[in-house]
Amino acid sequence: MARWEPNARERLERAALALFAENGYDATTVAQIADRAGLTKSTFFRHFADKREVLFGGQERLTEAFTSAIGTAPPSATTTECLSAALEAVEVVFTPQRHEFALQRRAVIAAHSELQERELLKMARLGLAVAEALRARGADDITARLAAEVGMLAFSTAFARWAEPGNEEPFPPIAHAALRELQDRAAALGAAGTPA
Amino acid sequence: MARWEPNARERLERAALALFAENGYDATTVAQIADRAGLTKSTFFRHFADKREVLFGGQERLTEAFTSAIGTAPPSATTTECLSAALEAVEVVFTPQRHEFALQRRAVIAAHSELQERELLKMARLGLAVAEALRARGADDITARLAAEVGMLAFSTAFARWAEPGNEEPFPPIAHAALRELQDRAAALGAAGTPA
Repeated sequence: MARWEPNARERLERAALALFAENGYDATTVAQIADRAGLTKSTFFRHFADKREVLFGGQERLTEAFTSAIGTAPPSATTTECLSAALEAVEVVFTPQRHEFALQRRAVIAAHSELQERELLKMARLGLAVAEALRARGADDITARLAAEVGMLAFSTAFARWAEPGNEEPFPPIAHAALRELQDRAAALGAAGTPA
Repeated sequence: MARWEPNARERLERAALALFAENGYDATTVAQIADRAGLTKSTFFRHFADKREVLFGGQERLTEAFTSAIGTAPPSATTTECLSAALEAVEVVFTPQRHEFALQRRAVIAAHSELQERELLKMARLGLAVAEALRARGADDITARLAAEVGMLAFSTAFARWAEPGNEEPFPPIAHAALRELQDRAAALGAAGTPA
């Protein structure tokens, strides 16, 4: 009986994060998540492979947003302009509606070393995909890898600021400001080296 | 009967890498490794927790070499000079004698997705430790994280060149050249942005 449930995915996400916060990630079962959301286990499994995917299911969408923005930037775009376009594209993922989810998700991951490892790996893979997208535009390997790391740092810095409780500014201007800060640091490192 | 076996660790590493290359990583057992090395399983377990540690046991030594070089650099050292010192310190790990091991290790990891994931995570953790060592010297968070990524990229670029079959140049000059290349790219990204 696979009937359509309105907002099933969002309801499951909300239920899962509430339960992770209340009882811990390990102690939460898929049955409990489905129950809390007022849905069946089979509805859960139509949306997520397992409970971990509630936290990491956005990876593909994020990678797709980054890489297609880089791939479709005008041929004349500089590497930095490609990174700007990629960060701008992430707005589709980090909408104001996702703010609460992002905050809760971060708290769950911070409390669990296996999930922290998964997050580290997710970011490393995203960086590899960005470097590949830049190489596909003709950037040399070292430039592509460095620019990808700069983009990832701008992304994680901006994400931390955007997810701050009380922040109401949308993601793109925060991300552009972070990218400019990273560029300034890159210029300083590239010159004489900043005092440490 | 815990008697001392000369060069046990190196013999076990050589045996393990030969077997991984011959039969694959998954099909190789600790018993086979010990047997090939002419040692017992209990000798193996005095040196390694499991067969994966033959490939990743160097992580702590590498982290220690990087972070203590940064921690003991003169107070006047710039961030880039700290990275230089860290890359220089890695010479204790990448000696000419380790060249063959490094090449074989790389081939085993490249053939196995779970090991690639482990390697990605190892590098991400090493980067976090380097950033922490730079913050401990007073670098601001964004500079520390960017410099750590620049250091990691210089390290992996240099490692790939050093490990090339036929290379006889020692690690430090290769690493310094890679760091200079990264600095040039950083300067370009920090300026107008390089065309991609």
